[in-house]
Amino acid sequence: MNSSIIRYILGNVLKMEAIFLLLPCLAACIYQEQTGIYYLGTAILCLVLGLLMTIKKPKDFVFYLKEGCVATSLSWVFLSFFGALPFWLSGEIPSLTNALFETISGFTTTGASILSDVEALSHTALLWRSFTHWIGGMGVLVFLMAVIPLSGGSNINLMRAESPGPSVGKLVPKMRYTARILYFIYFGLTILQIILLMAGNMSFFEALTTSMGTAGTGGFGIKNDSMTGYSPYLQWVTTIFMILFGINFNAYYFILFGKLKKAFAMEELRYYIAIIVAAIAVITFQTYHLYSGLFDTLTHSSFQVASIITTTGFSTVDFNIWPQMSKAVLVLLMFIGACAGSTGGGIKVSRIVILVKSLGKELNSYIHPKSIKKIKFEGKPVEHEVSRSTNVYFITYMIIFCASVLAVSFEENDLITNFTAVAATINNIGPGLEMVGPTQNFALFTPFSKYVMMFDMLAGRLELFPLLILFHPAIWKDLFTQKVTFRGKS
Amino acid sequence: MNSSIIRYILGNVLKMEAIFLLLPCLAACIYQEQTGIYYLGTAILCLVLGLLMTIKKPKDFVFYLKEGCVATSLSWVFLSFFGALPFWLSGEIPSLTNALFETISGFTTTGASILSDVEALSHTALLWRSFTHWIGGMGVLVFLMAVIPLSGGSNINLMRAESPGPSVGKLVPKMRYTARILYFIYFGLTILQIILLMAGNMSFFEALTTSMGTAGTGGFGIKNDSMTGYSPYLQWVTTIFMILFGINFNAYYFILFGKLKKAFAMEELRYYIAIIVAAIAVITFQTYHLYSGLFDTLTHSSFQVASIITTTGFSTVDFNIWPQMSKAVLVLLMFIGACAGSTGGGIKVSRIVILVKSLGKELNSYIHPKSIKKIKFEGKPVEHEVSRSTNVYFITYMIIFCASVLAVSFEENDLITNFTAVAATINNIGPGLEMVGPTQNFALFTPFSKYVMMFDMLAGRLELFPLLILFHPAIWKDLFTQKVTFRGKS
Repeated sequence: MNSSIIRYILGNVLKMEAIFLLLPCLAACIYQEQTGIYYLGTAILCLVLGLLMTIKKPKDFVFYLKEGCVATSLSWVFLSFFGALPFWLSGEIPSLTNALFETISGFTTTGASILSDVEALSHTALLWRSFTHWIGGMGVLVFLMAVIPLSGGSNINLMRAESPGPSVGKLVPKMRYTARILYFIYFGLTILQIILLMAGNMSFFEALTTSMGTAGTGGFGIKNDSMTGYSPYLQWVTTIFMILFGINFNAYYFILFGKLKKAFAMEELRYYIAIIVAAIAVITFQTYHLYSGLFDTLTHSSFQVASIITTTGFSTVDFNIWPQMSKAVLVLLMFIGACAGSTGGGIKVSRIVILVKSLGKELNSYIHPKSIKKIKFEGKPVEHEVSRSTNVYFITYMIIFCASVLAVSFEENDLITNFTAVAATINNIGPGLEMVGPTQNFALFTPFSKYVMMFDMLAGRLELFPLLILFHPAIWKDLFTQKVTFRGKS
Repeated sequence: MNSSIIRYILGNVLKMEAIFLLLPCLAACIYQEQTGIYYLGTAILCLVLGLLMTIKKPKDFVFYLKEGCVATSLSWVFLSFFGALPFWLSGEIPSLTNALFETISGFTTTGASILSDVEALSHTALLWRSFTHWIGGMGVLVFLMAVIPLSGGSNINLMRAESPGPSVGKLVPKMRYTARILYFIYFGLTILQIILLMAGNMSFFEALTTSMGTAGTGGFGIKNDSMTGYSPYLQWVTTIFMILFGINFNAYYFILFGKLKKAFAMEELRYYIAIIVAAIAVITFQTYHLYSGLFDTLTHSSFQVASIITTTGFSTVDFNIWPQMSKAVLVLLMFIGACAGSTGGGIKVSRIVILVKSLGKELNSYIHPKSIKKIKFEGKPVEHEVSRSTNVYFITYMIIFCASVLAVSFEENDLITNFTAVAATINNIGPGLEMVGPTQNFALFTPFSKYVMMFDMLAGRLELFPLLILFHPAIWKDLFTQKVTFRGKS
């Protein structure tokens, strides 16, 4: 394995984290909060470590999927660890486990918090929490690709490990430009949301943090009641932007280049919209008696549906008190998740569509055993490899899910709490039901369960395998016994 | 489609049901219960209909997987409908929906009951309930194959539709003899259990019904408290026989022909035993404080583990009050289920093993992208087709599961009740947790939810696809527009 390229990438990630940390430092200057010193300290630490790790350039810039996965997962572990330091050092989150949980929850855009009183946090800390969502949403390695040059064809392996969805689509032949276009769209949409929120009389700081949490489909709020206290206008803006950030970014690329027809012909997008509309209809019908009038009900049901399917996790009401059917719909949405190639989590609409289509195909094969029709998706036949890896993804997902529920069952919480806590973390959502419902938090768990959920959050964000191979003994043997690597062999 | 062969098979199934119904008639004579008249009446009805349907022999005895599936699912629907008539006509179960639920629960060896007081039933009804388990356990079409000659190679398609597991193994080249050997083993083991139970001072009637419920891994008891009131000896005998009936019957075939080594080398068997031992260990450790001493705890934990993994559903304690971890283990066992080729339900140990192995293979492919190692199971490489159909099975299973939970969520029961009620029916177990726990019953649901669960029970028993294709419009078009079918084409 080419471990010097991994070291080089990790070093660059640390250097970037140093730069990211300057944003909360800036907030500390503006709001004159002493806590900024810990962010600056951590930034310097990251910079020094990053420089040390990148002094020696690797001889060989070629890397394969294996290196891509290891580099990606380790980047996320490093990012989270150093990102947690200021919370812990400043004493704003006194326990290191909790600080790690909060930071991983931030970078993985989960939004599950261990804090019961976020309003007690400094502006610096609040901004850093929200900023981690924004960074994690599009991915730090995609960012890295956009700014530093890596070897030509190899960096698709980084993209493949970090980007959500069953297959990675390059927008343009060069990965570097693909990454830049993605960040350009991401940045643009975020700015637009900030402007629209400020037009509804939100302060700049609130608009900034809320938009970052929406863009990354994260869900950390800066109020204890999440979005409950805001006006319907602000709630609707957020609803619409949550839905927008859950769409495959290819659609925006098409729109940007005037190919409107192509954007609206995207099959995944249509299913995504159809699921959202259906879910809102069911829930509006069922919760009509709980709120005052149709508009109010529609505001709440749309907000919650958008928040859960895009795995953001903001809330305007306590859906834990909703009727069973509505709650069951929400739990189902938790698993479906957003579109591939968006910033959202979950299994992804495209995977669900492919899975349902393979059911249909199997049924047909009972009736026409000699038929060899392939499943079609987005107008093209689904390659055997994509179909197979989607199946294996789903199976692995279920195995990790069951194992995690079992592991957190050491605690005497009710089954729904444990079940939805795991669902909310592996799908990068945030709130679950019962004791982890929207008005509750994750502080109640033991450190053991918290580490299980940290694993789940990372596994969910990195789509399982890149993280799982870190636990393969062969990888560690490889990593520390640097072999002479020839070009063309891995 | 060859619909005359389907008619012919259905007719024979009805004739057989007429014969089956004579057993409760016999019980009615012995216990002098007037209710027997309804069983006799139904038997005559079945006989007449069966004779009418089999007067005209089909021209062509060849049938394919499609016909096999349709014949099998319709057989089970017919069997259940006519089997429910005596319960309903006699007024012992006044509602037809409930009578159908109870009968489908019987034939599919689920054991979920809508009765709150089974002790109020006549001996005739109790015997019929337990007998449906016994018939359903090994399968009525396997029985049919054993007694009436069907065309040579085609009847594997019936077996394939009715037998549980990812692939059907013929024991001997002729399906007819395979079916006979299976029933011989099944009958032998049942007799052995009856003798052992009677040795523990159980009455013949109780021993007979209990053994039938165990053999079919059904779980209908004849006491309101299931097996709670019995001595530890009787409980242990039942525990051991539940485990035995959950084993792939190939093992007994090997033992019968002196190939002991081959029996114990079966990979699925080893995993099955390992899972049972592990589950008992965890639960014994966790529930030790609830019972008096190690032996008592071991008796209860072993009984419940055996009952749930084999999907039988007898109980000696109310496991709804167990600690969360133990309950989570039980819920997991519900899904794992017994061995393929046994009378048990669930996903099946062999499928789980294949699924976990494909995870391992995927992980390896990240590290050695050029490796083309196949997964091995039972010492042989798993064929691509088996691996693919296992994946699709699992996906379909999850889709039906989610849709069912959603459908029963129209009712305002808690999520655990709805979730485990569906789990207990689709896996053919019987009791779930909370309001469908071991001390409760399924009467609380609306007729709509009951029909959803009836579908789940049949889908679970017939392993999804044979039942699902009944809902494909092409099948019904085919069925009623008899085409000229040439040999060799379907």
